Amino acid sequence: MLFREKPGVVMQKFWSKTISVSEAVELAVKILKESIELKAIDIPIDRSIKMISSESIKCPIDLPPYNNSAVDGYAVRSIDTIGATQLNPVKLRVKCSMDTGDPPDKCGVLRDSEAVEVGTGAPLPEGADAVVMYEDSLKVGDYIEVFRQIAPFDNVNRAGDDFKAGEEAISEGTQLTVFHIGLLASLGLKNVRVYRPLKALILPTGSELVEPGELLQLGKKYSSTDYIVASLLREAGFIKVIKLSPTPDHVEEVKKALLKGLEKADLAITIGGSSIGSRDVVHRVIDSEGLWVFRGVALRPGRTTSLGLINRKPVFILSGNPVAAWAGFTAIIKPSIYKLYRSSPPVEPSIVATVSERIVNVAGYRSYVRVALSSNGLKYFVKPYMIHGSSYLSSIIKAHGYVVIPEEVEGYDVGEEVVVQLFTTRHLHVA
Amino acid sequence: MLFREKPGVVMQKFWSKTISVSEAVELAVKILKESIELKAIDIPIDRSIKMISSESIKCPIDLPPYNNSAVDGYAVRSIDTIGATQLNPVKLRVKCSMDTGDPPDKCGVLRDSEAVEVGTGAPLPEGADAVVMYEDSLKVGDYIEVFRQIAPFDNVNRAGDDFKAGEEAISEGTQLTVFHIGLLASLGLKNVRVYRPLKALILPTGSELVEPGELLQLGKKYSSTDYIVASLLREAGFIKVIKLSPTPDHVEEVKKALLKGLEKADLAITIGGSSIGSRDVVHRVIDSEGLWVFRGVALRPGRTTSLGLINRKPVFILSGNPVAAWAGFTAIIKPSIYKLYRSSPPVEPSIVATVSERIVNVAGYRSYVRVALSSNGLKYFVKPYMIHGSSYLSSIIKAHGYVVIPEEVEGYDVGEEVVVQLFTTRHLHVA
Repeated sequence: MLFREKPGVVMQKFWSKTISVSEAVELAVKILKESIELKAIDIPIDRSIKMISSESIKCPIDLPPYNNSAVDGYAVRSIDTIGATQLNPVKLRVKCSMDTGDPPDKCGVLRDSEAVEVGTGAPLPEGADAVVMYEDSLKVGDYIEVFRQIAPFDNVNRAGDDFKAGEEAISEGTQLTVFHIGLLASLGLKNVRVYRPLKALILPTGSELVEPGELLQLGKKYSSTDYIVASLLREAGFIKVIKLSPTPDHVEEVKKALLKGLEKADLAITIGGSSIGSRDVVHRVIDSEGLWVFRGVALRPGRTTSLGLINRKPVFILSGNPVAAWAGFTAIIKPSIYKLYRSSPPVEPSIVATVSERIVNVAGYRSYVRVALSSNGLKYFVKPYMIHGSSYLSSIIKAHGYVVIPEEVEGYDVGEEVVVQLFTTRHLHVA
Repeated sequence: MLFREKPGVVMQKFWSKTISVSEAVELAVKILKESIELKAIDIPIDRSIKMISSESIKCPIDLPPYNNSAVDGYAVRSIDTIGATQLNPVKLRVKCSMDTGDPPDKCGVLRDSEAVEVGTGAPLPEGADAVVMYEDSLKVGDYIEVFRQIAPFDNVNRAGDDFKAGEEAISEGTQLTVFHIGLLASLGLKNVRVYRPLKALILPTGSELVEPGELLQLGKKYSSTDYIVASLLREAGFIKVIKLSPTPDHVEEVKKALLKGLEKADLAITIGGSSIGSRDVVHRVIDSEGLWVFRGVALRPGRTTSLGLINRKPVFILSGNPVAAWAGFTAIIKPSIYKLYRSSPPVEPSIVATVSERIVNVAGYRSYVRVALSSNGLKYFVKPYMIHGSSYLSSIIKAHGYVVIPEEVEGYDVGEEVVVQLFTTRHLHVA
């Protein structure tokens, strides 16, 4: 007998225990924290982009490290310029010149009525407290005439103006960006301490699946959701992916692949076989070998997203459907993993648009609705992206973005303003 | 003599020839196209993220590849269900069952009053044109009673509904995302043809520069802008970076490093030494060894961004100042490189905010103004992010985002709405 008696009823009973997205994330974070030991490693800064800092990094030095000139001109004692005007210039002796890279003591200490010619970035000589721009002076032999009274620290970049020694440069749990790398470099740090990359096993299941590049027999289809989930994980930037080939829907084969794969991974994500119907092989493996954390979430699509534990390691179950897997990953797995590291996913592009066709929710669910945008040149309008099958990849690739509808909202009516998260696959060349 | 006589005047004359940002991009694209030969390579799809497709990719097969069931239920001939109701069900003989992965001919051809039990995703048997859900039927022995009349293709995913064979899946110049990789996989494509990665040489110059990790002598500073530019290039995802150690401000050393480095690169980006003052060593190398494309751009910061040609290879010159280098890269180099590949940079996160403190421009310049956001819970407010030195990295790391002011706009007044590009370094936890 291929199907259970009245599977509709079985399914309903089974999934009636589904929890909310936020409960699922909370449980997942708890399980991830209990099962994964966070370790820190030191890596070169130029390989640290998107890695997550494992500690608060304090500035070891001031930035800039020393007072320096913000312009090309003459370093002076500001007190010497008191009363200087175009008609009554102050005359100072240029004793020496300094450029960026010169030691601050190159010209000795600046005394009464002395000036030092400085290039932009040159250290301020001892005794000087300001810089006169070329435009406010005239050189006459070994002297300059200064035409303007200047205040202390005029045209000076002061030590510590950018960052002060001891100030926190980067907090724990920061996902490092280009600019953090620049900051670490300017602090002289060659290496940075980050969390070691998470190792995630991906196990696609399904007797119908064939690897891309192989011959497609009738009734089979190419395995692709595993490629999407692997790419989403890699895109996060701090996760190593071990992707297995598709396993047929046999409990023993799935069990074997999962147990073996988990030996070298921190967690597993299985793809496919997640609905409680004919092919709940992953569920049966968890039933026999592990524990359930949650089975099903009030999420659309992605209702069958589940989490179990095998050998004390988290096993997320995602649908084989690419759109449901994307929603389950985005709503639950991604935020949970970031929270494990006391971090949060980076800001994604979004715009505000006016609803032009009602966007409907199912009561109690959090929905990820793919949408199409249009524009009248003044503002954007948004409506559900309708295609025959909402489970198709084209609903992501051809849509402009998506709208997340919270559990307590029944939908958005025409005229309401909503936030549209943009798929960066498409630019906003809307009609 | 360290400085030229009246360098202020020299500088003004020199930079008076500056061109607009759009003219600079246009010239840069022309030069890139003339000097860089685009070559295509085949790479495995799971290493193709962010690479740029070098050709239009047509779907070799339909997606889904065959008609299949969208639900668990019974495949039927819709004509057999005409007139079926709860009180007058139609009786059909269940001849066989099929699941995903089974060949479509497993159960033979469906004839009058026959049904085939099917799992979600199972191919539709020949002769069937619709699927009855479990909920609309009752199994009685080898028969089912169908309670509802259904239309052709009800509960069927039709071949080609997602993508049709021959349809363009990915256009030339597309920067591949997670979902493109999923699409390529589901089309059975193991490899994809993309442009070979661009090779960019980065040469920081400046006698004051010390590599991170080394001892900082008085008057020196750590080289960091080169790390930022290298990370920006790597982040684009299709560029290989060769980063040299800082070269002191000596024409012969810079010339030697540049000529040697360019042998293995498609283009160079020099950092520092870009102002026409005391240390215009890169300019002197272009003067003696190459040709100028443009010197200076009406861009703030980043006014000294320039482009020359050495041995027919483009040499971009960026300021040593991290903020000016970021602006020059973002306004000119990045869009030019994307245009070389008939592509454009991905959408960046942005929000609309109301100006709460005037944001000023300098006439004729395109300005990248770092801004701070606040919120009253209803909407966002934006004002310039003010720190002592606008050239400091903290103006990027501590600001929320930036506003781009076009050349023809003098500034934004209080109350105006502007688009704020967000630095993904900071989340919108605004006061």
